[in-house]
Amino acid sequence: MTCDFLALARPGVQKLSPYVPGKPVEELAREFGLRAQDIVKLASNENPLGPSPAVKAAISAALAEMTRYPDGNGFALKQALSAKLGVATSNLTLGNGSNDILELVTRAFVGPEHEVIFSDHAFAVYPIVTQAVGAKAVAVPARDWGHDLPAMAAAITDATQLIFIANPNNPTGTWIERNELEAFLAQVPENVLVVLDEAYTEYVETDDVPNGVDYLSQYDNLLVSRTFSKAYGLAALRVGYGISSPQVADAMNRVRQPFNVNSLALAAALAALQDEAYLIESRRINRLGMQQLEDGCAALGLGWIPSRGNFLAIDLGREAAPVFQALLREGVIVRPVANYGMPNHLRVTVGLPDENQRFLDVLKQALISG
Amino acid sequence: MTCDFLALARPGVQKLSPYVPGKPVEELAREFGLRAQDIVKLASNENPLGPSPAVKAAISAALAEMTRYPDGNGFALKQALSAKLGVATSNLTLGNGSNDILELVTRAFVGPEHEVIFSDHAFAVYPIVTQAVGAKAVAVPARDWGHDLPAMAAAITDATQLIFIANPNNPTGTWIERNELEAFLAQVPENVLVVLDEAYTEYVETDDVPNGVDYLSQYDNLLVSRTFSKAYGLAALRVGYGISSPQVADAMNRVRQPFNVNSLALAAALAALQDEAYLIESRRINRLGMQQLEDGCAALGLGWIPSRGNFLAIDLGREAAPVFQALLREGVIVRPVANYGMPNHLRVTVGLPDENQRFLDVLKQALISG
Repeated sequence: MTCDFLALARPGVQKLSPYVPGKPVEELAREFGLRAQDIVKLASNENPLGPSPAVKAAISAALAEMTRYPDGNGFALKQALSAKLGVATSNLTLGNGSNDILELVTRAFVGPEHEVIFSDHAFAVYPIVTQAVGAKAVAVPARDWGHDLPAMAAAITDATQLIFIANPNNPTGTWIERNELEAFLAQVPENVLVVLDEAYTEYVETDDVPNGVDYLSQYDNLLVSRTFSKAYGLAALRVGYGISSPQVADAMNRVRQPFNVNSLALAAALAALQDEAYLIESRRINRLGMQQLEDGCAALGLGWIPSRGNFLAIDLGREAAPVFQALLREGVIVRPVANYGMPNHLRVTVGLPDENQRFLDVLKQALISG
Repeated sequence: MTCDFLALARPGVQKLSPYVPGKPVEELAREFGLRAQDIVKLASNENPLGPSPAVKAAISAALAEMTRYPDGNGFALKQALSAKLGVATSNLTLGNGSNDILELVTRAFVGPEHEVIFSDHAFAVYPIVTQAVGAKAVAVPARDWGHDLPAMAAAITDATQLIFIANPNNPTGTWIERNELEAFLAQVPENVLVVLDEAYTEYVETDDVPNGVDYLSQYDNLLVSRTFSKAYGLAALRVGYGISSPQVADAMNRVRQPFNVNSLALAAALAALQDEAYLIESRRINRLGMQQLEDGCAALGLGWIPSRGNFLAIDLGREAAPVFQALLREGVIVRPVANYGMPNHLRVTVGLPDENQRFLDVLKQALISG
């Protein structure tokens, strides 16, 4: 190699460590010589219900148009979201997953001269998108594993351009209550963007967690990010959306790729949005499974962080990496979170009853022999 | 609005005019009160054959995994591309369409201090991605509607970071011959990236047009960009790929979103790559249709730019916009290219025989009454 191309890359890109996803089932099967059907994956906060028949039917119908470009404006999906959320289509930005939304707002508004604030133990994509545009990341220490909003407000400087807030937060499952969010929003200068990531909001069944959409009329600097990857069960298809003032949406739509969401994804999301029964069943399975995991952890004498998501961060009271490896060898994939500053925790997605039990059984064995 | 958020956006974003896609069939149907099935769309260089049965079967099989995240590394598709192209998987970057590839390389390597060179009348995405990162666009005048490679080489300065070359070029259909490309590559400094966009290369049936992959071993600064949206018939699904030195691929993979290509798209592309019969039939239909369009234009006394793609830029000898509008009213969508500096041309995608005839009939009528 006569020329060092990595040295030619943008300064932010040179230092970028890509996002590490949950280990795919096929990869584990290849590495350990296991059968894919024997593997339980509780590593990526995916919906364990499997695909909804209504969504499958919508995709099959859309296959006829496979050789055509998608509708780059997402007309039908935006109409449906607009009706459901009570906002105008000009408030909406569609994304290739909500990851796309988080990246679009950062690329549209943030540069090397800016600071971006987020919490310790918050979603790994926040530091990654910050790094990619060469901005300064300001990670604020957490309080009881959750966002310390007063400390985050106190971290705002003249250089702050954007603040990421996750509610509920991944990987901790912690949540922000209504009065906390309101006090925080009132303190943020109007020229600082607040990105409220509500990827797990559909799993929240209590009244104390606010709906970000309720604050959009009051705060033009607020962007609420949502996804179809979790409770709607469409992780494979990559559909997310942002809800914001029209000006913020306009800037994001300028930087998005013209066909960022594919046709089958648009059709699937439209069907999923109308499939209320699937959402209700997803919540029910999650409620039961969360209880099962908590009971199982209590029986093993383990602690955990109370969660409003579809996952539980379990405190093993010792280094989690060897336990993660032991689980892998038994065909159970969960998520180590040492890269989130949580070396003693494992994050486990709530699965179906059999999957949860398999995890608990294998965990018990690993803890005894470990 | 108390705060001007567009003024807060990055300087490049403020001046950005998004890509204008071909008018979708549903949009024309809504606007003109037409029935979708009566509309002929020859506006987006889509494959008129419709979906391949093999691809539909692959997607149906993949629906079982809809609630799971995609394989972010695209293991199976990269293996298949590697075998077909004779390159290592470390040379490959998968994209959400080749648009993603063009954007990734630009974001990974180009900043406001740089210049990016491309030809007049070349693909609209080149100036858009250049503008989005705030770099200086250097558009070099064309020669006979095609790339003037000697002039492009002469436009290189110390600030030049990247050069876009399209072969064949869209929207003109012009192509670069082997000796021209070789002379050009030999002149470009080794620290300047050359992006060779071969979106239409599968339609080329002559020997004089080079295969960019042949030059990768010699030029570490070369990135070849390909797509499944054209001859492979997967425009709806958004799959493209880049082939480059491992270092360039590494930088691009750092900035890409972790799940930029969705699961159904990965499955479809893998099936399409193995469906040689579909590709052969696509080329046959294109060859016949191109002849039909050229014969029809000759009969109408119209000129055109000779094309190696799946589209033809027809010279109406007068302003094309009113003719485009007249065609729309008759339910025929083609592409006006005034935004490419070609106000007298219409770009027409090669369709099925009936579609081509319908276009020619309606064009004749529009020219007579216009």
